[in-house]
Amino acid sequence: MTEEKKESALTFFVISDSAGETASKLAQATMAQYPSVKFEMFRRTFVTTKSALLKTLADAKKHNAVILHTLINEELIDLTHDFCEESGLYHFDVLTPPVAEVERRTGVAPTREPGALHHLNKNYFKRIKAMEFAVKYDDGKDPRGFLEADVVLLGVSRTSKTPLSLFLANKNLKVANLPLVPQAHIPKQLWEIDPKKIVGLTNDPDVLNGIRKKRMIAYGLNPDTAYSDIEKIKEELDFANDLYHKLGCEIINVATLSIEETASIILNKLNLEDHSYYVTDED
Amino acid sequence: MTEEKKESALTFFVISDSAGETASKLAQATMAQYPSVKFEMFRRTFVTTKSALLKTLADAKKHNAVILHTLINEELIDLTHDFCEESGLYHFDVLTPPVAEVERRTGVAPTREPGALHHLNKNYFKRIKAMEFAVKYDDGKDPRGFLEADVVLLGVSRTSKTPLSLFLANKNLKVANLPLVPQAHIPKQLWEIDPKKIVGLTNDPDVLNGIRKKRMIAYGLNPDTAYSDIEKIKEELDFANDLYHKLGCEIINVATLSIEETASIILNKLNLEDHSYYVTDED
Repeated sequence: MTEEKKESALTFFVISDSAGETASKLAQATMAQYPSVKFEMFRRTFVTTKSALLKTLADAKKHNAVILHTLINEELIDLTHDFCEESGLYHFDVLTPPVAEVERRTGVAPTREPGALHHLNKNYFKRIKAMEFAVKYDDGKDPRGFLEADVVLLGVSRTSKTPLSLFLANKNLKVANLPLVPQAHIPKQLWEIDPKKIVGLTNDPDVLNGIRKKRMIAYGLNPDTAYSDIEKIKEELDFANDLYHKLGCEIINVATLSIEETASIILNKLNLEDHSYYVTDED
Repeated sequence: MTEEKKESALTFFVISDSAGETASKLAQATMAQYPSVKFEMFRRTFVTTKSALLKTLADAKKHNAVILHTLINEELIDLTHDFCEESGLYHFDVLTPPVAEVERRTGVAPTREPGALHHLNKNYFKRIKAMEFAVKYDDGKDPRGFLEADVVLLGVSRTSKTPLSLFLANKNLKVANLPLVPQAHIPKQLWEIDPKKIVGLTNDPDVLNGIRKKRMIAYGLNPDTAYSDIEKIKEELDFANDLYHKLGCEIINVATLSIEETASIILNKLNLEDHSYYVTDED
């Protein structure tokens, strides 16, 4: 067996006839497994013609790239396969296996329409509305949003309320959030809604202290202000926890959680995990 | 050959030791190929133990589900494989092929750490900051945001400025947007920044007319207001196009584009497509 020359840097080519979200996520998940390897990633999206595909494949060959694709047109899939086999390029067809399995079980042929994921269906508009809702009712801007929301997030400063709201909005949920400070006025609407819709976010005092000190330094300010004072932080957290118990809502400590993990916990706790929010529907 | 009984409804089980984003996107892309088939989708996320996995697999078996997984722990991968083979369940291991290819080429072993995608790395915090930026500088709230932004979006009402800003924020780009109305004050900061950062969004008058009429009806108002008046809309679009030409910025007509398509065009036009924004880095 000959020893192959090992590479310390690799290039991914994500090729898609649509926005390339699936294959990009897969490339990122793969790259994350190799913190010591240097990666480059090129996205070639909305590739729907043979000429565009050939140009992309020639480019991938120049980079000796690892190719992940989600093409659906059979001619383009075959072209990719043949080109890669001839050139000795690795290519992983991500979409064909599950599509073939559904065809086998249902006897229905796939539409093979590129970009079907992003068709302007009802689900798509629902998601856009959810995003607009999240921005409109971010940061307690308008307490009337609480009445319409699927989820209401409460939390002290730096518990990731805004990105969490947007992440959940991307799952078609209408999310409003309210920052909590001890002297804050608590809008009456909060007592009018089902506490099962409310999530109280909390954090460890030490974690908050560290984050806030860094933030002050980033602003060019003295890190030891009331904002980062540990006693003040504890007061804030006590006030928040007290309110959460009065409301009877779910409480999540985000200290060691990423946005994705917190969102997943919220979907579980609020029984939204298996909701058809995830299902593409055209009706 | 015996005729198999064909099914008209199918269940997907997405199993992941992390947030399950990759396999969920793949399930959605697959389902979109079959508009006539009824699908259900269950996400089982943060599955990191054998007992949790066995419970999930038993559940999937009850649904005779199509399983897509992105597990990275070898014991869990093997368990899934063995369980599915014994039960005759279809399972597609999405992550192993590209991970194996990188190992082959680099000689480096994957960390096999679950959820590595969402580690709290620099990239992750950059994305959170980008999301907060998009919300802060949405809707022309503060023109100082234009000076700091990677992309500035201009557009008349209903050209998808907000969801587009959030979608680009998800790619770690700092995006500010400004709604344009003929009588609007144009902030001076817009003339101070590189026009290569600015994108002017426009739309077809008929499309806007239709959208706005629907919006008025949804609000319970008369659809034939100045807001939906075709002549007024043309005036607004002329004003916007005139400004775009004066600024010398890129112009995109979003009439037939989804958010993902518009975002992809922006990344291409602004030469951000291949930027390392996409690459996970730990440094």
